[in-house]
Amino acid sequence: MTSDRPRVVIVGAGFGGLAAAHKLARAPVDVTVIDRHNYHLFQPLLYQVATAALSPADIAEPIRVVLRHQQNATALLDEVTGVEMAGHRVVTRFGPSQSYDYLVLATGSQYNYFGHSDWPQLAPALKSLDDATLIRRRVLLAFEEAETATDPVIRQRLLTFVLVGAGPTGVEMAGALAELAHATLSRDFRHINPQTARILLVEAGPRILSGFPERLAAFARRSLERMGVEILVDTQIEAIDRDGVLARGRRIDATNVIWCAGVEASPVARSLGAPPAQGGRVRVAPDLSIPGNPEVFVIGDAAFVTTASGEPLPGLAPVAKQQGQYVGELIARRVRGESAPSPFRYRDEGALATIGRHSAIADLGWLKLTGFPAWVLWGVVHIFFLIGFRNRMAVFLNWIWAWLTYGRGARLITGDTTRLALTPKLAPTAIVEDLVSEGASDHHRTKSPL
Amino acid sequence: MTSDRPRVVIVGAGFGGLAAAHKLARAPVDVTVIDRHNYHLFQPLLYQVATAALSPADIAEPIRVVLRHQQNATALLDEVTGVEMAGHRVVTRFGPSQSYDYLVLATGSQYNYFGHSDWPQLAPALKSLDDATLIRRRVLLAFEEAETATDPVIRQRLLTFVLVGAGPTGVEMAGALAELAHATLSRDFRHINPQTARILLVEAGPRILSGFPERLAAFARRSLERMGVEILVDTQIEAIDRDGVLARGRRIDATNVIWCAGVEASPVARSLGAPPAQGGRVRVAPDLSIPGNPEVFVIGDAAFVTTASGEPLPGLAPVAKQQGQYVGELIARRVRGESAPSPFRYRDEGALATIGRHSAIADLGWLKLTGFPAWVLWGVVHIFFLIGFRNRMAVFLNWIWAWLTYGRGARLITGDTTRLALTPKLAPTAIVEDLVSEGASDHHRTKSPL
Repeated sequence: MTSDRPRVVIVGAGFGGLAAAHKLARAPVDVTVIDRHNYHLFQPLLYQVATAALSPADIAEPIRVVLRHQQNATALLDEVTGVEMAGHRVVTRFGPSQSYDYLVLATGSQYNYFGHSDWPQLAPALKSLDDATLIRRRVLLAFEEAETATDPVIRQRLLTFVLVGAGPTGVEMAGALAELAHATLSRDFRHINPQTARILLVEAGPRILSGFPERLAAFARRSLERMGVEILVDTQIEAIDRDGVLARGRRIDATNVIWCAGVEASPVARSLGAPPAQGGRVRVAPDLSIPGNPEVFVIGDAAFVTTASGEPLPGLAPVAKQQGQYVGELIARRVRGESAPSPFRYRDEGALATIGRHSAIADLGWLKLTGFPAWVLWGVVHIFFLIGFRNRMAVFLNWIWAWLTYGRGARLITGDTTRLALTPKLAPTAIVEDLVSEGASDHHRTKSPL
Repeated sequence: MTSDRPRVVIVGAGFGGLAAAHKLARAPVDVTVIDRHNYHLFQPLLYQVATAALSPADIAEPIRVVLRHQQNATALLDEVTGVEMAGHRVVTRFGPSQSYDYLVLATGSQYNYFGHSDWPQLAPALKSLDDATLIRRRVLLAFEEAETATDPVIRQRLLTFVLVGAGPTGVEMAGALAELAHATLSRDFRHINPQTARILLVEAGPRILSGFPERLAAFARRSLERMGVEILVDTQIEAIDRDGVLARGRRIDATNVIWCAGVEASPVARSLGAPPAQGGRVRVAPDLSIPGNPEVFVIGDAAFVTTASGEPLPGLAPVAKQQGQYVGELIARRVRGESAPSPFRYRDEGALATIGRHSAIADLGWLKLTGFPAWVLWGVVHIFFLIGFRNRMAVFLNWIWAWLTYGRGARLITGDTTRLALTPKLAPTAIVEDLVSEGASDHHRTKSPL
């Protein structure tokens, strides 16, 4: 595949990266999509993997399958560790570095723990499939251990879930956990009283879902509270240890603390030396290129772009997608010697968040929906945007089945099954082995001084 | 749940353990099913998880769901580490020990590496879901690395798969890998020539599928060879290292060596002090109890039982199931003061093995089938015996989809994605980090002196 055609390297096969690749399908270029995973992940449904409703494979599609029919594109499984902008090369972890004529950085975001280096181990976040199976394991293990716990303090701690951050991810996790605890538990466990499971949604700001109109957020809040979720706003997390959190001076005992708070741009984008903005995002020119490097583009969560009114665009799939399409189109025009498109403008298509088994909120600008109609819209949109016919069928049938039976199709505890709570038989030195996660990410728990 | 009723402890929620539990549904006893996993695993389809055709959740059902409607039964997630027969207690890894009036050990088998302590790391076997996702990752990574390998020797090594042992598991893995390599690769990779992928099925005995009639095994052999599988019989593996095997004095370079050879009873059964037989299996009385301990039973792969003609029963699901039903019935009668049933007798229902996408062999005694009719029978039987309506639907639809598209629904590389082959960028000291697996089982690779 060595040719004289310009070489476009796209880093990241999320919504933005794949949209850029597809736009280049008929351009006279060679496209290489580099990703550290072999699959495109449909992140909006990741919380359903973490709560055992869907399997990892249902929301992931191999990048090679996505690009199968695009003859000018190839996939490369590797991790980009740096960009040599002067030499027009990206440096990768395993293989040789890759030269480019055009570079599209669609590397996404990662969770930001605000400088607390021990928090990622204590309060895992939901960004990858491995994160999701780790959280699924921890949540299901907590129920199993609560079933046999004889100490009521330990049992209550095991059945308490703290979600940090009340954006869409926190809200959706809270609803899913409430259903899991209150609907599933009551039938399958003999000793747990489902009423005792507590789900706390903790938000530092003054209200949940700050990205949504006030009326919709208030609806979501009432719905969650009816489902038994306790919502604490204006509440900053001050400390986390293996047995809970300290929030606004108050201690909350909880074995499971899940991080759904702020994100920051991924390290590669931050290492470019380009002017950084809020959250380490890269401030780009109106055509999404890096000032002074017209052949390097940053899109999606890694880019900082403002609307006409000066507000930063949110880190949402539609933003990444539109930016990917824009950059793909721009590169295609440039290699053909055509005029450049006008600066990027985001068409706001609205936002959705689901609350529970038949309730959601939808803000389409001209139309605001709540409850069941919003939930139907949410379901249709998510299945429509899933990549792959098999995945659409699988998710659809899983939802139908779950809706009819309250069942969860993927209630598996896989990987390390060491227990979460200290039982009398575990020696104190066993604590550090407690949370060894699957594979690459080492979650070693250490007792914090809290 | 403390009652005066006799307490039946069943260790292992495989085919045997669950059959025993179900038979006790209406008996005046309290049943506790202990398993170290929270799910019943449908092992006959595990090779399809390892070859990316099915998701783990498709072939696993939570034990709590299986026992949901059996009011006298409860599930306990724990690992039994020993049996105190004098005190009528089983010792568990995490929780308190469990006392019993009747004990059913249905702990299954594990792979036997014939005393080679380093082989399990070099040649993973297929016994658990974690094994299956590990093998899936290694197989898919080998294809990815072959796509970018520049050294033809390394590329060929990455594309060579050695399966050790030609029983049903080895044969089914060989067929599935041949399809994956030859049908899937050709479309999704740009640099690999699918003809270069080699699948070798290595068997120490004189023929493949020694448990099947000669004629059926010969059919399977011809089918596999037509699919490109190379079969080596009378070939003992003498050494394994990270780059291949030594077999009958001949070196075979292969990054992936998968162990499908002999099994032995799991350690708990072997630790009972009961008379051991072949493969560490426990020699039981005609009523499947341990001689001298009429309240302790061993069933399934862990038990050594012979037919009227003196042949040992094979380690198959129907054997375990019938033995579980027998023991459940026996205990139910005994607690009711009824007469004991006549000694256990196995009703041979036949055996099945699949070869490829539309071929299998079936030996029903009175009827022997090969090819497509056997494959249809194989599919129907496997879906019928799967537990859970959702799983049946999921497997059925995945098969239809795979059959129509040649696609694989679960082509995910999850967990640690460190590379398999040494690339120039990996320092030699990195070798030991090479194969760190998910969670508990540490697969550290070390260069063997071979």
